[in-house]
Amino acid sequence: MGSFTPKSFAPLDPQSFSDESKAVVDFIAEYYRNIEKYPVQSKVQPGYLSEKLPDTAPYAPESLDDILKDVSESILPGLTHWQSPNFFAYFQANASTAGFLGEMLCSGLNVVGFNWISSPAATELESIVMDWMGKMLKLPSSFLFSGTGGGVLHGSTCEAVVCTLAAARDKTLEKLGGSENITRLVVYASDQTHVTVKKSAKLIGITKSNFRVIPTSFSTKFSLSPENVQAAIEEDIKAGLVPLYLCGTIGTTACGAVDPIMELGKIAREYKMWFHIDAAYAGSACICPEFRPYLDGVELADSISMNPHKWFLTNMDCCCLWLKQTKFLVDSLSSNSEYLRNNASESNSVVDYKDWQIALSRRFRALKLWIVIRKHGLANLMYHIRSDVDMARRFEALVVADRRFEIVVPRKFALVCFRLKPELESEGSKLNRKLLDAVNSSGRAFMTHGVVGGRFYIRVAIGSTMTEEHHVDDLWMLIKEKAQNCSYSN
Amino acid sequence: MGSFTPKSFAPLDPQSFSDESKAVVDFIAEYYRNIEKYPVQSKVQPGYLSEKLPDTAPYAPESLDDILKDVSESILPGLTHWQSPNFFAYFQANASTAGFLGEMLCSGLNVVGFNWISSPAATELESIVMDWMGKMLKLPSSFLFSGTGGGVLHGSTCEAVVCTLAAARDKTLEKLGGSENITRLVVYASDQTHVTVKKSAKLIGITKSNFRVIPTSFSTKFSLSPENVQAAIEEDIKAGLVPLYLCGTIGTTACGAVDPIMELGKIAREYKMWFHIDAAYAGSACICPEFRPYLDGVELADSISMNPHKWFLTNMDCCCLWLKQTKFLVDSLSSNSEYLRNNASESNSVVDYKDWQIALSRRFRALKLWIVIRKHGLANLMYHIRSDVDMARRFEALVVADRRFEIVVPRKFALVCFRLKPELESEGSKLNRKLLDAVNSSGRAFMTHGVVGGRFYIRVAIGSTMTEEHHVDDLWMLIKEKAQNCSYSN
Repeated sequence: MGSFTPKSFAPLDPQSFSDESKAVVDFIAEYYRNIEKYPVQSKVQPGYLSEKLPDTAPYAPESLDDILKDVSESILPGLTHWQSPNFFAYFQANASTAGFLGEMLCSGLNVVGFNWISSPAATELESIVMDWMGKMLKLPSSFLFSGTGGGVLHGSTCEAVVCTLAAARDKTLEKLGGSENITRLVVYASDQTHVTVKKSAKLIGITKSNFRVIPTSFSTKFSLSPENVQAAIEEDIKAGLVPLYLCGTIGTTACGAVDPIMELGKIAREYKMWFHIDAAYAGSACICPEFRPYLDGVELADSISMNPHKWFLTNMDCCCLWLKQTKFLVDSLSSNSEYLRNNASESNSVVDYKDWQIALSRRFRALKLWIVIRKHGLANLMYHIRSDVDMARRFEALVVADRRFEIVVPRKFALVCFRLKPELESEGSKLNRKLLDAVNSSGRAFMTHGVVGGRFYIRVAIGSTMTEEHHVDDLWMLIKEKAQNCSYSN
Repeated sequence: MGSFTPKSFAPLDPQSFSDESKAVVDFIAEYYRNIEKYPVQSKVQPGYLSEKLPDTAPYAPESLDDILKDVSESILPGLTHWQSPNFFAYFQANASTAGFLGEMLCSGLNVVGFNWISSPAATELESIVMDWMGKMLKLPSSFLFSGTGGGVLHGSTCEAVVCTLAAARDKTLEKLGGSENITRLVVYASDQTHVTVKKSAKLIGITKSNFRVIPTSFSTKFSLSPENVQAAIEEDIKAGLVPLYLCGTIGTTACGAVDPIMELGKIAREYKMWFHIDAAYAGSACICPEFRPYLDGVELADSISMNPHKWFLTNMDCCCLWLKQTKFLVDSLSSNSEYLRNNASESNSVVDYKDWQIALSRRFRALKLWIVIRKHGLANLMYHIRSDVDMARRFEALVVADRRFEIVVPRKFALVCFRLKPELESEGSKLNRKLLDAVNSSGRAFMTHGVVGGRFYIRVAIGSTMTEEHHVDDLWMLIKEKAQNCSYSN
């Protein structure tokens, strides 16, 4: 051990807090200014960082300057730059100054609002913001606190799905009268549903063979067919199984497909199943009247979730979950312990969000979403969605105008799915993988891929906060440039 | 709707990012400077905030000044001030400048490191920091990446427990050869184990009646008795059940009890159960040689978790989980989807942390813990723990020296459990509740309570970052002052 001897130290001294925080603000602002200089997808090799950093913690303190130097020299080269305007991969995680300010306040106040009394403002602001957001999406009042429902902020869609699945499971097991019935419960989703639903079902103890993956196809633009869902349910009932949970998606990850919410909702009602709507990506768009029709039928759902941390200018992490009958969530997730007992909770006049989520502890995420909404206003938030969709439309038109390319699945939001047309269908995958690799390895843009109906294609998700029209045009130029070298024979 | 018409807007413009972030830094620094002026526990009434804020989102953008004014006037009064030096409730959530800087970088870079390729630095720094932390705790190399194990950062102990329970469940069900055996699996904990374990067991589908709560008592200072655990296991086996998971705790929430890790580990080995150690609170102390003996026997555990967001100067949220056989975690939690496929993952040469946690998405939490460790160094981190323990020892001595009071459970770390001695045991609860309410409602300090062996007591958890000796002395003065009015007859 070193020879450093600590004296009294003040890890939260307001003056050095202020000075050092401002240095980091400058560091991040400079990062944003230079962000286009980095290769979008990191070019490091596995294990690169362990060669740069010591393998044990330092004994003596180190300076912020030294730490920021290491961030610049060792961390930044190993990042894939999600905030780059040339990031078109997965779905974006669009940060904003407003979201960042909210995160700062959340982290600076550092309260742990597990129940109302532990910080009433954290609970009450969350309930208010959930109603604001629900009203922006024109959710029925049955999902709002001002109506008969309510909402909560989770960290991820997966958490929202795990919690609603558990609520549905416990409600149904109670009705069936025995926990051994857990092996009879069946969950339904499509082959386009996010993999998180399958993972969540497994996590809460649904038998692996009781997770139904309903196939979709080009004929429905990869949206779930109500007839196929109903047929699967009928078959399971005949086999003595119990339909539990159906997940419909608004804006699937692979290709942005939208499931028919109204029809699925009717089926779920008929069979008394829990119906959850996963609007993680495209839920944000539904604040615009022109996209709101995708939500028609939401009144038939039991729960709906969407992620402001994707397309709503809200820094990670933030997932909104609304429920109609919050009682079932609380029944399944509540926990009581003597040290948490307090008059407010026992009066039943307050929300204790620990009973609406997996963990006991929780961050004050509502500040972030509240500031995002206020600093932009609904007007600018709609403007933001529409400008991304316009850019995607522009990109789509460029693809369509070039006869070497084709759109694979029609665009609905700001995700464009396209490919180089192969001479032989069997070569499509190889050809487009080559193009994708060429673009990504250039460092000038980063896209990912999908496969639907056996067809490999390239996904361009537009929506990084700093992306402007010229970035989209540059991307298209880059794709065309790289496509030159992707001859069909190679 | 308003008349505001949005023009082009730039939600992440570096200059306004910098200006506005600095304004918020100043706001938070000012909050810290004034933090002792607020009542520690909020005095608002349920529903207070909905009277102050509009019930719908604004259409036009609002200024940061207006927002910060609302934070001051509407949010701060509704906070229970976890960063106050007079906060002695629950366990502390000790923030630090270092932790805040890490949160800023995490939020500013806003990368989503679900797999290696999506931001290699996020994954690799996490693995490196988990090894640093593991070495600081002198964990056997079987828990380190540099050995044969590995670690991951979760958001909470609950997530760590859910994930390890699921891993144990799936490993055991595989061995038993059928998912219907889920109803035979049994989880063991004590009546002092955090309620999160019971909640987690229910979440992953363990039958409610198969959660064993082993009673503890004054005779073992509320530590789990190995004999009682073994007896419960034997009884379950006789009944045809399958022992699955045993949780031992280092520093229980109610009274800071420590379970006998070595003995429990031997039992778990004997019955081939998963043994998890929950060191959420007191794990931090184990970086000091004088506390490390509590971890003896950790080599017999399958997993161990502790929360830097409690007592390790790391802002929310941050929970370290180490495992010996990471394979079982990954087997249970892995999910694959075409859009996530990449060469690095398929080469099996990298860690994909999405398979080590509940959600797909994840924040770059490792930055925070890395900066906390570097900016303080092991020397100052030990100093920090020891100074809190010294203050607790000082407070304990004050209690002991006053014959009206007594220590209820002997102190091990920085949590003091005491009470006013009642004339009649049957009046102890009423008397101490009255004292607790009197102190808390003064606004000058905030403490919580516990009940062990039927005895109600007051918990003083020392460890808020800004707490100094004089705060502890003031607390004692306040308690004595209020105790004057708690006559035995009232």
